[in-house]
Amino acid sequence: MEGADLIAMVSIITAGLTIAIGSIGPALGEARAAAQALEALARQPDEANTITRTLFVSLAMIESTAIYCFVVSMILIFANPFWSPAQGVTGG
Amino acid sequence: MEGADLIAMVSIITAGLTIAIGSIGPALGEARAAAQALEALARQPDEANTITRTLFVSLAMIESTAIYCFVVSMILIFANPFWSPAQGVTGG
Amino acid sequence: MEGADLIAMVSIITAGLTIAIGSIGPALGEARAAAQALEALARQPDEANTITRTLFVSLAMIESTAIYCFVVSMILIFANPFWSPAQGVTGG
Amino acid sequence: MEGADLIAMVSIITAGLTIAIGSIGPALGEARAAAQALEALARQPDEANTITRTLFVSLAMIESTAIYCFVVSMILIFANPFWSPAQGVTGG
Amino acid sequence: MEGADLIAMVSIITAGLTIAIGSIGPALGEARAAAQALEALARQPDEANTITRTLFVSLAMIESTAIYCFVVSMILIFANPFWSPAQGVTGG
Amino acid sequence: MEGADLIAMVSIITAGLTIAIGSIGPALGEARAAAQALEALARQPDEANTITRTLFVSLAMIESTAIYCFVVSMILIFANPFWSPAQGVTGG
Amino acid sequence: MEGADLIAMVSIITAGLTIAIGSIGPALGEARAAAQALEALARQPDEANTITRTLFVSLAMIESTAIYCFVVSMILIFANPFWSPAQGVTGG
Amino acid sequence: MEGADLIAMVSIITAGLTIAIGSIGPALGEARAAAQALEALARQPDEANTITRTLFVSLAMIESTAIYCFVVSMILIFANPFWSPAQGVTGG
Amino acid sequence: MEGADLIAMVSIITAGLTIAIGSIGPALGEARAAAQALEALARQPDEANTITRTLFVSLAMIESTAIYCFVVSMILIFANPFWSPAQGVTGG
Amino acid sequence: MEGADLIAMVSIITAGLTIAIGSIGPALGEARAAAQALEALARQPDEANTITRTLFVSLAMIESTAIYCFVVSMILIFANPFWSPAQGVTGG
Amino acid sequence: MEGADLIAMVSIITAGLTIAIGSIGPALGEARAAAQALEALARQPDEANTITRTLFVSLAMIESTAIYCFVVSMILIFANPFWSPAQGVTGG
Amino acid sequence: MEGADLIAMVSIITAGLTIAIGSIGPALGEARAAAQALEALARQPDEANTITRTLFVSLAMIESTAIYCFVVSMILIFANPFWSPAQGVTGG
Amino acid sequence: MEGADLIAMVSIITAGLTIAIGSIGPALGEARAAAQALEALARQPDEANTITRTLFVSLAMIESTAIYCFVVSMILIFANPFWSPAQGVTGG
Amino acid sequence: MEGADLIAMVSIITAGLTIAIGSIGPALGEARAAAQALEALARQPDEANTITRTLFVSLAMIESTAIYCFVVSMILIFANPFWSPAQGVTGG
Repeated sequence: MEGADLIAMVSIITAGLTIAIGSIGPALGEARAAAQALEALARQPDEANTITRTLFVSLAMIESTAIYCFVVSMILIFANPFWSPAQGVTGG
Repeated sequence: MEGADLIAMVSIITAGLTIAIGSIGPALGEARAAAQALEALARQPDEANTITRTLFVSLAMIESTAIYCFVVSMILIFANPFWSPAQGVTGG
Repeated sequence: MEGADLIAMVSIITAGLTIAIGSIGPALGEARAAAQALEALARQPDEANTITRTLFVSLAMIESTAIYCFVVSMILIFANPFWSPAQGVTGG
Repeated sequence: MEGADLIAMVSIITAGLTIAIGSIGPALGEARAAAQALEALARQPDEANTITRTLFVSLAMIESTAIYCFVVSMILIFANPFWSPAQGVTGG
Repeated sequence: MEGADLIAMVSIITAGLTIAIGSIGPALGEARAAAQALEALARQPDEANTITRTLFVSLAMIESTAIYCFVVSMILIFANPFWSPAQGVTGG
Repeated sequence: MEGADLIAMVSIITAGLTIAIGSIGPALGEARAAAQALEALARQPDEANTITRTLFVSLAMIESTAIYCFVVSMILIFANPFWSPAQGVTGG
Repeated sequence: MEGADLIAMVSIITAGLTIAIGSIGPALGEARAAAQALEALARQPDEANTITRTLFVSLAMIESTAIYCFVVSMILIFANPFWSPAQGVTGG
Repeated sequence: MEGADLIAMVSIITAGLTIAIGSIGPALGEARAAAQALEALARQPDEANTITRTLFVSLAMIESTAIYCFVVSMILIFANPFWSPAQGVTGG
Repeated sequence: MEGADLIAMVSIITAGLTIAIGSIGPALGEARAAAQALEALARQPDEANTITRTLFVSLAMIESTAIYCFVVSMILIFANPFWSPAQGVTGG
Repeated sequence: MEGADLIAMVSIITAGLTIAIGSIGPALGEARAAAQALEALARQPDEANTITRTLFVSLAMIESTAIYCFVVSMILIFANPFWSPAQGVTGG
Repeated sequence: MEGADLIAMVSIITAGLTIAIGSIGPALGEARAAAQALEALARQPDEANTITRTLFVSLAMIESTAIYCFVVSMILIFANPFWSPAQGVTGG
Repeated sequence: MEGADLIAMVSIITAGLTIAIGSIGPALGEARAAAQALEALARQPDEANTITRTLFVSLAMIESTAIYCFVVSMILIFANPFWSPAQGVTGG
Repeated sequence: MEGADLIAMVSIITAGLTIAIGSIGPALGEARAAAQALEALARQPDEANTITRTLFVSLAMIESTAIYCFVVSMILIFANPFWSPAQGVTGG
Repeated sequence: MEGADLIAMVSIITAGLTIAIGSIGPALGEARAAAQALEALARQPDEANTITRTLFVSLAMIESTAIYCFVVSMILIFANPFWSPAQGVTGG
């Protein structure tokens, strides 16, 4: 049953690294957008509505790349299309 | 069935790394564009329309590179053209 | 029982690295947002409410990427879907 | 059929890494150009036309390098000229 | 008893690296937030209350990522769910 | 037929990495030139002609290094001078 | 007695690296907080009390991550829970 | 025919990496010179002639290092002096 | 006596690297704090007492992380708890 | 004929890497000097002669390090003193 | 006598790297403190005494981390506690 | 004749890398000095003589480190003291 | 005589790397201190004595870390305490 | 004669890398000092004597670390104390 074990191991490693590496960019990016929004708020309190709306659209857009990574990570753990055949053939 | 297993493993690793690495650039890039847009909004509230429109076109353009990565990642997991022949020949 | 052992080892390493690497981005990102919020507070004490609210929404959004990592890490340690089959088949 | 399998594996890895690495530069580059355009818009709203036109030409030029990578990535997955001979000779 | 030994070794390495790597981000992040708070205090001594409160909330939020790492590290040393089965089966 | 397979693998990897690595510099470089041109446009709208002309000459010059990489990449995939002899001798 | 030796070696390496890597972040972080406090003191000598208090709370918070690392390092050297079983079983 | 194959492989890899790595410096360098020229144009439109001439001389000088790399790359693919002897001796 | 030798080697390497890596952070950190203190002294000579006192507390706090490393390094060379058993058992 | 083949391979790799790595520094360096010269031209158009002359001397000096690399690269490909003996002895 | 040789080799490598790596931080750190002191001297020549005294205390503190490394390095070369037993047992 | 071949290979690699790596520092360094000289010329055209003289002395001093590398590189290719004995003994 | 050869090789590598790595920090550090001293001289020519004296004390302190490395390097080449025993025992 | 060959190879590699790595720091450092001196000359032409003298002392001090590396490099090539014994014993 070596084949299935190897696929399991590889899926575990990849799932972890994908979300780990994939969370660096969005975390820093959202922080940058948020920091600038706070700075803009302090300078133009009257534009709070426009600024907050633009910030949330941007955060959602940036978060989307983190969610791509999370989706791939979850697929690899719970819905891995390579897992059944490997297990079925060699375990059957 | 070693060949199919290896291709499965390689596809898993590549799918994960592609979206993980590929999400760093767009996340940081969108953050930069958004941050500058917020800064511009605070300076020229009257130009909110032009600024928001230019921002969204830019975000879409930057997001496109993340989507290229996501597409390649999904192809490797669910529509891998190298998977069937490897499985068919060795498993037949 | 080599297969189960290898999966255990890989899960341990991945769980640790996932949360370790995955905590760098959010920690730095939250710090950046918080620092800017403090700076904004010092400049516009009257807008403390708007600033604090925007800060907390942003912190929650950034923390979410750390939580993705923590969730994957906990799944790998306590609810690893690859652990039972590997243990059952080879230990049975 | 080892040869074809190896070529398949190598094509998968290369396709993923090519688009992953190749999307970092354009994403950051487009962000930079867009950020500066937003900054210019805030400073010279009257020149919106010239600025937007120059921005779009530049974005297209930068995007072209991402598209080179995507093209190579797609060729390696769906039109790999090394795939047929390797498969034909060893599988025939 | 090789299996249990390997799991022990891997747990030790991972526990150490997790807290070591995981303490870099929070340490730098808390420093940044604290530095900015001190700067804000020097500029707006009258807002000391709001600034200090916001700082402590932020520090707690950032510290949380360090604590995630510490928790995973302690679990791997003292409550490792992979340790008993490996030891029991091979040592029994 | 190992020799031809190895050459095929090496060509695939090199073609991908060449365009991937080779697109980072031009993408960032074109972005820098474009950003500065936009900045110059905002400062001297009257010099739009000279600025745009100098920008396009520079973009072409920078793009040329990306095209060198793309040319080498295409040569390695579709016109590889090492491919025929390796294939002919061992397959003949 | 190879198993116990390996665990000893791994514990030594991990203990050293944990405290070595784990001291970089806190050292730089405390320096940053302290530098900013000194800067604030020079600007607002009258707020020395608030500044010093906030500095010490922050230093304690940052030092805590260094202490996490030191604790794990000491546990691995003097209270390693994996050491006795490995030694007992193989040496008995 | 292993010798000739290895030389072919090494030539392919080196040709690709040479132009890939070698295009980073010139691309960034030309961008820097161009950016500064655009900035100078915006500040001193009357000196457009001197600025443009100096820019083109500099671009040519910087491009020369990219061309060195391209020349070496082409020599390795199409005029490799090590290729004939290796092929002749072992294939004769 | 291979086991004891390996433990000796590992202890030597770890002791050296621990203090080497562990001295980078504190050295840079203390320099930063000292530089800022000197800058503060030049700006507010009248506050020399408060500044110097805060500096020395900070230096002591930062030095503490270097001392953690030095302690671990000395323990590994002169009071290594893994050294006697390894030597005793295999040499006895 | 393994010896000559290895020397050929090593010469190819080294020739490529030498000019590739060696072109990064001069390209960036010449760009910096040129950028500053353009900036100086914009500030002191009357000193165009002195500035241009100093720029060209500097460019020549910087280019010299690129030429050192190109010379070594060409020597390794076309006038390699280690090539003849290796080929002569083993091929004779 | 392999054991003693290996310990000797490891001690040599570690001694060299310890002082080499360990001298980077202090050298840069002392330079920073000294640079700031010179800057302070230029701004407040009247405070030369306080500045010089604070500088020397700081330099001593920073130098201490370099000396930790030098001490460990010397111990490993001239007073290595692992050297005698290894040599005695295997050479006796 | 393996020994002489290995020495030839090692000499080739080292000669190339020495000049490649060794040209980065001087190229960037000379560029920095030249850039500053151009800037000084633009600010103090009357001091052109002193500035140019100091620049040339500095360039010569910096170039000297590139020449050290070139000398070592040439010695390794054309006057390698390890080459004759290795060739003589094994080829005689 | 393998043992003595290995120790010789290791001593050569370590001696070279120690001084090579160990010269980076001091060179950059001395440059920084010297640059700041020159800057201070330009701002306060009247304090040339104090500035020069402080500079020379600092340079000596920084140079000391380079000398530590040079000393270790020379010891490893000309007074290596591990060299005689290794040579004596195996060559005797 | 393997031992002498290995020592020769190691000496060649180390000699090259020592001067290559060791020239980066001094080249950049001298450039920094020279750049600052030129800047000081432009600001205080009257202090040309003091500035030039301080510059030359600093350049000599920085060059000294490059010379340490060159000396070690030359010793390893032309006066290697490990070369004769290795050659004598195995070749005799």
